[in-house]
Amino acid sequence: MDRSRLEAFSDGVFAVAITLLALNLTVEGPGRVSLQHQLWDHRWSFAAYLLSFFVIGIIWVNHHALIKSIALVDRTLLFLNLVLLLFVVLIPFSTATAAQYLPVGGRGVKVAMVLYSAVFLGMSVGFGSVFEWTLHGDHRTVPLPPQAHWPARLRFVGGSGVYVVAIVISLFDAIIAFILMALTAVYYIVERTPTSPAAEGQRDK
Amino acid sequence: MDRSRLEAFSDGVFAVAITLLALNLTVEGPGRVSLQHQLWDHRWSFAAYLLSFFVIGIIWVNHHALIKSIALVDRTLLFLNLVLLLFVVLIPFSTATAAQYLPVGGRGVKVAMVLYSAVFLGMSVGFGSVFEWTLHGDHRTVPLPPQAHWPARLRFVGGSGVYVVAIVISLFDAIIAFILMALTAVYYIVERTPTSPAAEGQRDK
Amino acid sequence: MDRSRLEAFSDGVFAVAITLLALNLTVEGPGRVSLQHQLWDHRWSFAAYLLSFFVIGIIWVNHHALIKSIALVDRTLLFLNLVLLLFVVLIPFSTATAAQYLPVGGRGVKVAMVLYSAVFLGMSVGFGSVFEWTLHGDHRTVPLPPQAHWPARLRFVGGSGVYVVAIVISLFDAIIAFILMALTAVYYIVERTPTSPAAEGQRDK
Amino acid sequence: MDRSRLEAFSDGVFAVAITLLALNLTVEGPGRVSLQHQLWDHRWSFAAYLLSFFVIGIIWVNHHALIKSIALVDRTLLFLNLVLLLFVVLIPFSTATAAQYLPVGGRGVKVAMVLYSAVFLGMSVGFGSVFEWTLHGDHRTVPLPPQAHWPARLRFVGGSGVYVVAIVISLFDAIIAFILMALTAVYYIVERTPTSPAAEGQRDK
Repeated sequence: MDRSRLEAFSDGVFAVAITLLALNLTVEGPGRVSLQHQLWDHRWSFAAYLLSFFVIGIIWVNHHALIKSIALVDRTLLFLNLVLLLFVVLIPFSTATAAQYLPVGGRGVKVAMVLYSAVFLGMSVGFGSVFEWTLHGDHRTVPLPPQAHWPARLRFVGGSGVYVVAIVISLFDAIIAFILMALTAVYYIVERTPTSPAAEGQRDK
Repeated sequence: MDRSRLEAFSDGVFAVAITLLALNLTVEGPGRVSLQHQLWDHRWSFAAYLLSFFVIGIIWVNHHALIKSIALVDRTLLFLNLVLLLFVVLIPFSTATAAQYLPVGGRGVKVAMVLYSAVFLGMSVGFGSVFEWTLHGDHRTVPLPPQAHWPARLRFVGGSGVYVVAIVISLFDAIIAFILMALTAVYYIVERTPTSPAAEGQRDK
Repeated sequence: MDRSRLEAFSDGVFAVAITLLALNLTVEGPGRVSLQHQLWDHRWSFAAYLLSFFVIGIIWVNHHALIKSIALVDRTLLFLNLVLLLFVVLIPFSTATAAQYLPVGGRGVKVAMVLYSAVFLGMSVGFGSVFEWTLHGDHRTVPLPPQAHWPARLRFVGGSGVYVVAIVISLFDAIIAFILMALTAVYYIVERTPTSPAAEGQRDK
Repeated sequence: MDRSRLEAFSDGVFAVAITLLALNLTVEGPGRVSLQHQLWDHRWSFAAYLLSFFVIGIIWVNHHALIKSIALVDRTLLFLNLVLLLFVVLIPFSTATAAQYLPVGGRGVKVAMVLYSAVFLGMSVGFGSVFEWTLHGDHRTVPLPPQAHWPARLRFVGGSGVYVVAIVISLFDAIIAFILMALTAVYYIVERTPTSPAAEGQRDK
């Protein structure tokens, strides 16, 4: 089956990106500030690490289900998938930037959270474009019935919509934008209601 | 078989995390301190590298056996596995922190070793939760007989228990906590007594 | 099939190299320069990241198609593939160097862009040598007819030729060399005209 | 087949280690020293990168052939393989150290080259122990005839022997030790004489 290298390469990128997140966690050696104070000062780094870890984890779980439904791998799919990965690879950078500015506040943190949300938005749009590609032609092993297209699309638009809202909120209050994205991640982890028969098939097989 | 991407992604994360451990090993260029003195000064870095390498290696070997026994991959399993990986990814950070504070002693090293043990504990609990998930429903290809559940659980509780003890000991003597974890790793590498027929099956096939 | 480890290792190297590109993107914490100014000052870093990401992506897509056509994996192929990967691994370094010198201009940026183009040229020549190897003996599952050899070769020579031209142009104007390589990357992403029946077969199956 | 995760994890570690080698290649931004002088000053870094890249590449090619001959994956094999990987993961560190001290000479470079050779020796001994394991029991799909054991062993002892010699030479002249290891790598890349029927079978299938 030809999907295997698409999956292997994507899994490699997801795995490296999710592991590089923790490279931003560093403390200074013994000296002026005690270790427990340093760890407390880094609480936003840990929070940003946790959120980005699960956002990458969720997109990996969904990527897993989406690629499994694909019958045909062509160059268009490979490049749409690269757009998705382009933003996944940026997540360690946007996470490190958010973690640097979150403890300080002011104008910098608003810019940092716009960047942080925008990278997630890019990833979400990249994922949506791979999904849209699967709806056309003979791209799926089991075609999604036409009446299921819009509910499924809305689901993805919903995901991207949260990040658009987070960008706007970031301009006013970066913390609320962070909490909104964290709650969205929790929702995606706990929700189990399939929105389409195809999604259900993807999920439990 | 659907376990393949779960394995590929997990192997990717294990492989990146285990390789990033060595990124913390650096020496200064020619100058004030001779290279052999620098290497000697870094002896705790090497010891921490060695211990963390084999702890990740052991969990990878056990993950290998555990996932092989799974018949069904669902979203719950994927997210429990992500919790396990969340702590695996933190190991290079906790190892670097321990290596920085071990040569100095004082209060900092106690905090560092509590962090170091706690990350291993989180990994161990994450692994235990994946194992617990396999005991229910039709999740295993060959169900474990009910009378084997508790012995198998105790084995995992035992592993986590060592890390709880190490956290407590760290508050008094960081070196003893380190030695305890090193001896536990050696034990897991050399022991070959299967605790259940299923474990034996996993091991030698 | 024996190609699997060649693919797995190559995919691993491609995935790590493409993800390490973004390690060069870093901003300073809150302080002298506002975050939005820093991001603007880093515009060349983002442009170089984008170009290198898609150059690695394109070579991965083509590698995917090329390896799929191979019937026999021998030591010669493995070492030719290593030469290709040798240059892929250098891309994060040459990208970081280009990003450092592009904002400044002067003689340094010319040297930086010669280096940047030369690493791509090395990658392209490495890819071409793997391709040349597939044309001889019984190396392909479906042999390419002899009259298709030169058109296919010309295609690869064309790719390498662009990088030779970019090296020469870099000595006069680094920005034009950068734009030339960016347009070439866009061309390779959008073009869909197969140059040989075998290439078509590789592409759409 | 059960070898797949052993291969996937090992390939992941090889791929990450080989890519991290190039992380040590960095230049300063525009300023005091021109870029072409910096690149020239880093010539030993490039030489060490090149040698370490091909040493990892060669061990990957041989690992590929060795694991393919294995019928049975047990815990002992997994831990012997981990010992091999333990030293592979140290190569970026030993390479960076050698690259730092090679341009300077003096006592530091001798210690650096002893470290560099010793890490390769550890890798070679780890590989030899995996090979030794395959000679016993029913570990191979096609058992190696007993009269082929010693010629095959000698081949591996030969490889490790070069590194022992390199360690000794390093104490007198680091450059000669480096050249010896480089010539050995070239030899392993170009040699094609199979030493046993089994090795031939591994090589060309």
